[in-house]
Amino acid sequence: MHRTHTCGELRAEHIGQTVTLSGWVQTRRDFGGMTFIDLRDRYGITQLGFNEEQDKELNTRARSLGREFVVKVHGEVIERSNKNDKIPTGNIEIKVTAFKVLNASLTPPFTIENDTDGGEEIRLKYRYLDLRRNPIQEKLVLRSKLNKAVRDYLNDADFIDVETPYLIKSTPEGARDFVVPSRMNEGQYYALPQSPQTFKQLLMVSGLDKYYQIVKCFRDEDFRADRQPEFTQIDCEMSFVERDDVLDTFEGMIRSVFKSVKDLELGDIPKLTYDEAMRRFGSDKPDMRFGMELVDLDDVAKGNGFGVFDNAGSVVAINVTGGNKYTRKELDAFTDWVKRPQIGALGLIYCRVNEDGSYKSSVDKFFDQEKLAQWAEKSDSKANDLILVLSGETEKVRKQMNELRLHIGDLEGLRPKDKFAACWVVDFPLVEYDEESDKWHAMHHPFTSPIPADRDKMETDPGTVKANAYDMAINGMEVGGGSIRIHDKTLQKRMFDLLGFTPEEAQEQFGFLMNAFEYGAPPHGGIAFGLDRLAAILTGTDSIRDVIAFPKNNMGRDIMIDAPAPLNADQKKELGMP
Amino acid sequence: MHRTHTCGELRAEHIGQTVTLSGWVQTRRDFGGMTFIDLRDRYGITQLGFNEEQDKELNTRARSLGREFVVKVHGEVIERSNKNDKIPTGNIEIKVTAFKVLNASLTPPFTIENDTDGGEEIRLKYRYLDLRRNPIQEKLVLRSKLNKAVRDYLNDADFIDVETPYLIKSTPEGARDFVVPSRMNEGQYYALPQSPQTFKQLLMVSGLDKYYQIVKCFRDEDFRADRQPEFTQIDCEMSFVERDDVLDTFEGMIRSVFKSVKDLELGDIPKLTYDEAMRRFGSDKPDMRFGMELVDLDDVAKGNGFGVFDNAGSVVAINVTGGNKYTRKELDAFTDWVKRPQIGALGLIYCRVNEDGSYKSSVDKFFDQEKLAQWAEKSDSKANDLILVLSGETEKVRKQMNELRLHIGDLEGLRPKDKFAACWVVDFPLVEYDEESDKWHAMHHPFTSPIPADRDKMETDPGTVKANAYDMAINGMEVGGGSIRIHDKTLQKRMFDLLGFTPEEAQEQFGFLMNAFEYGAPPHGGIAFGLDRLAAILTGTDSIRDVIAFPKNNMGRDIMIDAPAPLNADQKKELGMP
Repeated sequence: MHRTHTCGELRAEHIGQTVTLSGWVQTRRDFGGMTFIDLRDRYGITQLGFNEEQDKELNTRARSLGREFVVKVHGEVIERSNKNDKIPTGNIEIKVTAFKVLNASLTPPFTIENDTDGGEEIRLKYRYLDLRRNPIQEKLVLRSKLNKAVRDYLNDADFIDVETPYLIKSTPEGARDFVVPSRMNEGQYYALPQSPQTFKQLLMVSGLDKYYQIVKCFRDEDFRADRQPEFTQIDCEMSFVERDDVLDTFEGMIRSVFKSVKDLELGDIPKLTYDEAMRRFGSDKPDMRFGMELVDLDDVAKGNGFGVFDNAGSVVAINVTGGNKYTRKELDAFTDWVKRPQIGALGLIYCRVNEDGSYKSSVDKFFDQEKLAQWAEKSDSKANDLILVLSGETEKVRKQMNELRLHIGDLEGLRPKDKFAACWVVDFPLVEYDEESDKWHAMHHPFTSPIPADRDKMETDPGTVKANAYDMAINGMEVGGGSIRIHDKTLQKRMFDLLGFTPEEAQEQFGFLMNAFEYGAPPHGGIAFGLDRLAAILTGTDSIRDVIAFPKNNMGRDIMIDAPAPLNADQKKELGMP
Repeated sequence: MHRTHTCGELRAEHIGQTVTLSGWVQTRRDFGGMTFIDLRDRYGITQLGFNEEQDKELNTRARSLGREFVVKVHGEVIERSNKNDKIPTGNIEIKVTAFKVLNASLTPPFTIENDTDGGEEIRLKYRYLDLRRNPIQEKLVLRSKLNKAVRDYLNDADFIDVETPYLIKSTPEGARDFVVPSRMNEGQYYALPQSPQTFKQLLMVSGLDKYYQIVKCFRDEDFRADRQPEFTQIDCEMSFVERDDVLDTFEGMIRSVFKSVKDLELGDIPKLTYDEAMRRFGSDKPDMRFGMELVDLDDVAKGNGFGVFDNAGSVVAINVTGGNKYTRKELDAFTDWVKRPQIGALGLIYCRVNEDGSYKSSVDKFFDQEKLAQWAEKSDSKANDLILVLSGETEKVRKQMNELRLHIGDLEGLRPKDKFAACWVVDFPLVEYDEESDKWHAMHHPFTSPIPADRDKMETDPGTVKANAYDMAINGMEVGGGSIRIHDKTLQKRMFDLLGFTPEEAQEQFGFLMNAFEYGAPPHGGIAFGLDRLAAILTGTDSIRDVIAFPKNNMGRDIMIDAPAPLNADQKKELGMP
């Protein structure tokens, strides 16, 4: 037997017992004739004690143990003289009477500590060692709990866990597929799913009623920071539902997850329309942890001879409570920040509200105290606040202001990682126009239904048609999205027409779904959550790589196993690959 | 709102309530001025009633509803005059006051009944309709419960659910990999995992201690009946364990699954060594639902001048209790059966035990009553039994007898699908010799450890070395298998040497695992269960296709979505594919 207890289990009540533990040598401390070793496993750390006086040979052997050696020790649980109240086993130690080295270890290329000295590249190469560190291990444990909390909720709500296939058919629409050559069917390929979208809709046609799956999805995108070619979705679909049935169900799920995993009651989850979210926050995934909402200054800022405003689509402000503390230099830095190409603003206007209630703006030439008082009134600014103003094309300026709002939110400490605020964004546009291809593109996907009241405009004014689609955002990040689907083949055909699919293209790519709709498809809708992103938010990390056991780097490469890699000649020949 | 209740929910206690139901038209029956419709959803069937006298127009509209139309009905729950005690809703019906057709349906290409008239090909093409049938839908529901039962047990036992990557590196050893060309790294490929074997071992190196995952695996095999290119594994690994720790844990899991899913106490799970299983049953996955064990007749059958026996490696018998009932013609059919090329026996000897205790054998010329009495004693045969005897090369004849035993077991009704008997088979050979390549092959995989006592024979007599490996069989089918792994790099190198890997090949294919073993790998072992097979056994079906929502056919083709399929020219160009 390798152990009677784990390294996190022993307490004062075990004193006097003879035990066997196995684990890794975390640290060794030699004091005169005494040797202390912290033995580590997933469950905790237990201190081992060796005494030269009692057993010289054993103590000498203990001193040969290096970091990360795997040992099995046998001994008595005794009271610790130097108690450590920072760890649960801190009241005891093991007086070791015998031990065995189960495996030696080379010196690891970086320290196995909470704050390691290893850079990301070397930690990815030796991921199995990085995974020994508490901060990473805890994230994987939390992810496992998250997974369980989701399943518990959905199982209780009568959802059926159904696995859909991974070897499917490529659909050239949307992001690029990863493909898999078929050896048995030369010149033919499977594709890996970007999502089980069509299959879950088919499951609704088949009457499964409520489906879920936690499933890997694949997207062959050009690499960018914090994207993984494979990612995990909580994928769900329900029949005979309307929008609010879906929102209620999954609001319940997210609440249940926060309760189970973080023991936290998630506050209200407000529903914002897309238009409202864009107007108030400049984002379709607003960070609701703080206010500082966008204020439209058009009617008080325009028409004062200041061309920058007068010629702008919108003049938009935010009020930074207590923001008058920022120095002129800091304000200049804000200006530089919004002028960076990633943000793309042409400049930033500010207006300080002084302690005495007077105003000092960067456009005093055009706006007197009375005018500025109107700005302040509009944006609910008080003494010592700071009003920041951007102007330009409406959609652009709102997005720029969203970025600035988040930036200042960070500076002001309004976005703590242990605070969580969720919201729904609903009534997205159905389609968006792409100038390059001169085509309308589905904002979600081609199976998303338009809001019934807007259907008549699909052919005449598609840009104004709202979709019966919804996203959930937490802390400014999209964590889930879905829609009520089109279940009627006539409407589906109108949608394909709108998106510029010829009937042949539609038939070739989605024929099996359209055929299925001929045989009694029920009204249905669903949602998919990004498990990686959700786990990242719950663990307070910015990178989804931290919540994936074996992530790829930003170039889509697994540098631990060195994949992708060339095939050998036999494999290539069999597959007919070049 | 589409429904207030499901179609399986209403009972006598709901009588008088006004309800809304949605579902599919299962059947319509027109009687004079009355129309009855069975409305179906996943949860059950509810009878709808229409009455011409009360609402002529509604009744007329109801008569236009065809099979599989989707309708939403509104009405009052009333007591049913003709009660149906076969269904839970049989005491009530809905007096419909209004309804709406949510979707029409073409006439399905086969009947949506428990016993459908559709052949397998058409049912696979219209899988979404086949999935509407109860027998298939129930299997998916059970599979979902199985999934949950497994997770509940493993979560309770402190296993962590960790996802391992799907885009990994090809290892030419073993079965063929499916590969995925990397667009961003021309000429390089990912491979889809045949199992997460190396990753779960790395998770043990990383100290995760107990890991599980329910995960898709992929094998590009030449197609044969009831193989799927993608299949699902319950994949598990534990650290600091010995064999019986693993067996106890997963015996508990299987018991828990049978209890949760079938409300059934699984009996004892005996442990047989591989040698014992082969001797007693001629199989390493014996069907333990019945006896009829193999009996070695060597010492009573050889040396009697019957050359067939005398020159055979082994003479093996089974006793068929009450088998004297079989006619001569039936016995001839058994002979033909074992002589088929799939079995490959040269002939079959029988010995009837007559009611009066006398014997009648097909080899009376060589064996008198006294000799045959010895056969009967050896094989514990009584009056009216039948002894069947095969002879030949020991290993072959045992396997042939296993087939015959199962065949007769079927005929005798000893293998009912609602009876379950599991066993462990342990101490498999470590390697088997392949004449063609003149190489030793790992019977499980190259990371399986030899039994400590046998290690010295690895170089001198590898064929006799037993592996610390184990399989679980239920009802004669292998459902799981695993081993205690090699955690020591010296032993791992000896194993690679034995398997004929050059150090370079070993380093190239498994270098990252061997490197990991340099940094303190703990003793570890694990197991993987085939979820598809387990679900098939639990649902009493012979084909795993029945428990997969969207299976491929025997040619690895999804005939519903028509995959695999050619890529379009752009895709091929981007990927550099021919």
